[in-house]
Amino acid sequence: MLESVPITLDEARALARRVLLRHGLAEDHVASVIETIVAGERDGCTSHGLYRLIVCAHTLSTGAVAKAAKPEIIDLAPSIVHVDADGGFAPLAHSMGLPLLIAKARAQGVAAMVLTRCVHFAALWPDIEPLADEGLVALACTPSHAWVAPHGGTLPMFGTNPLAFAWPRQGRPSLVFDFATSAVARGEIELHRRQGRPLAKGWAIDSQGAPTTDPEAALAGAMLTFGGHKGSALALMIELIAGPLIGDLTSRESLIHDDGRKASPFGGVLILAMDPSAFLGDTAAFHLSRAEALFQSLVEQGARLPGDRRLAARRAHDTAPLSIDRALYDDLIALSGDP
Amino acid sequence: MLESVPITLDEARALARRVLLRHGLAEDHVASVIETIVAGERDGCTSHGLYRLIVCAHTLSTGAVAKAAKPEIIDLAPSIVHVDADGGFAPLAHSMGLPLLIAKARAQGVAAMVLTRCVHFAALWPDIEPLADEGLVALACTPSHAWVAPHGGTLPMFGTNPLAFAWPRQGRPSLVFDFATSAVARGEIELHRRQGRPLAKGWAIDSQGAPTTDPEAALAGAMLTFGGHKGSALALMIELIAGPLIGDLTSRESLIHDDGRKASPFGGVLILAMDPSAFLGDTAAFHLSRAEALFQSLVEQGARLPGDRRLAARRAHDTAPLSIDRALYDDLIALSGDP
Repeated sequence: MLESVPITLDEARALARRVLLRHGLAEDHVASVIETIVAGERDGCTSHGLYRLIVCAHTLSTGAVAKAAKPEIIDLAPSIVHVDADGGFAPLAHSMGLPLLIAKARAQGVAAMVLTRCVHFAALWPDIEPLADEGLVALACTPSHAWVAPHGGTLPMFGTNPLAFAWPRQGRPSLVFDFATSAVARGEIELHRRQGRPLAKGWAIDSQGAPTTDPEAALAGAMLTFGGHKGSALALMIELIAGPLIGDLTSRESLIHDDGRKASPFGGVLILAMDPSAFLGDTAAFHLSRAEALFQSLVEQGARLPGDRRLAARRAHDTAPLSIDRALYDDLIALSGDP
Repeated sequence: MLESVPITLDEARALARRVLLRHGLAEDHVASVIETIVAGERDGCTSHGLYRLIVCAHTLSTGAVAKAAKPEIIDLAPSIVHVDADGGFAPLAHSMGLPLLIAKARAQGVAAMVLTRCVHFAALWPDIEPLADEGLVALACTPSHAWVAPHGGTLPMFGTNPLAFAWPRQGRPSLVFDFATSAVARGEIELHRRQGRPLAKGWAIDSQGAPTTDPEAALAGAMLTFGGHKGSALALMIELIAGPLIGDLTSRESLIHDDGRKASPFGGVLILAMDPSAFLGDTAAFHLSRAEALFQSLVEQGARLPGDRRLAARRAHDTAPLSIDRALYDDLIALSGDP
């Protein structure tokens, strides 16, 4: 019996489509959720790839997401576009707001897009890669569920609160990365539990606030931020600017809102876009080439550019099919309702 | 003999004034540099307090800063103000540009201030505290000199590249923090060398790229970022958005520009300001109070709010004089030219 199943990107799209339609997601949402999920799988982010269909299907079945949400675009200020996602998955609201965000960034120099009342199930990098592909510099952040204790505290308060950054490159794929401000991803803790492996030190504390390497104790306690008090300060910043600043839930409020359904986090996303042409005028090309010199010097000394493993996986899947874990594939076939 | 010397804030200002004037700094710059330095000392940031007068005096004496620079304000785009610092210290250029940045943030919702061609010698938090005191949310970052190796590399490429964040609070001092993306401050390595103490693990590598706890070897090698590859990615982001994006030097270029003078870094600063009223309209007060609930929950579980040690030192100096190390005081008296 095969341990993994080769499928093409189009087959992956078709499978994702069947799963989502069978769980009642409206056609326009299906199209945008599929692209996000298949992009994750294509880029080797298996935790944010086809596996997320299981998470999406569960979220749909619990009623925690509006299946036919109608996002509304609100032109909030000269440099702010607000998309009220109407309780739906984030990707459709995101793609609907993107053209106005791009137009505002070009006209004003700097602009923000605020997504609110959305269910965010994906990695954060797909939210900003399209901006860099349009020649803009972009940042994004979002809270999640309260799983992470602040530095010096013992109770989960922050989400895994990722930060994403994107930088345009001439004639090359944009430089795009994201990272959780938790020491590791939530899924990593759950994976260790399933496999009965101890956690690394520094990942988590138990419910008494004591360091633990026991996954069960960690899940009952709290995860820790990366980088001690600095990572904790960054997590707090993200909690604030993608929570109260945009009028949406904190990670703690998202978890309360979830009410035990174990659905994906509910809340908002803040995206900032900056136009190098507005900052630099005619000298933009020159200064962007100085960034290339910086990248070159990093690579020459053996450092890896953030995001380059993803791009390598993407290139590999230009010709090779995706390789899906057999158990995951079988689960997805079952979720799709196929015999 | 006293080990420390008590002086009032006004005496500190007068002493700073004499030192800076004696080293030829123009009157308008003196006034703004003094406020930054005394604010650092008052807030207990001794490495960015009166000690920085020695750094400033050295920078002035090497010719690395323009003593009578005339900053120019350029209204670059609806959401961008650019202040060309004309090679001078940053604080005057910063304070000249601040009113336009505040006006733009209020009118557009989001705005950026770009300081270029400035010598930045101070902590970063004073650059954004005034914005939060005006009710705005703010971020700032700046490269420095290339002292820090990227994760997986061996050669110094990044600066200590601090990130600062400020959040307005009703009826309380603004929440303001900054942190270097290096594992520790550059001064910490130098302090350990002077005292002959070994460094902690994870702070630095030697010139061969091997981990070291020897301060001499670290200074000949490279410092490391905090938080492994995540801190390194953040340092790269700062290098890009406060370097090439604003048409100014990277940390490596700043060190080359310095040409062995050991002056403060030369380059630019990027400041972003966001107006909660633009994001939230009439509901701003309500959502800012939700942030207060978050702060309360952090404090109740024993975590410290970022920046609160600084605010405690500030409160203490409302009534108590500053306490200056005797050796530093004597050095400053000598630099001031007083008998």
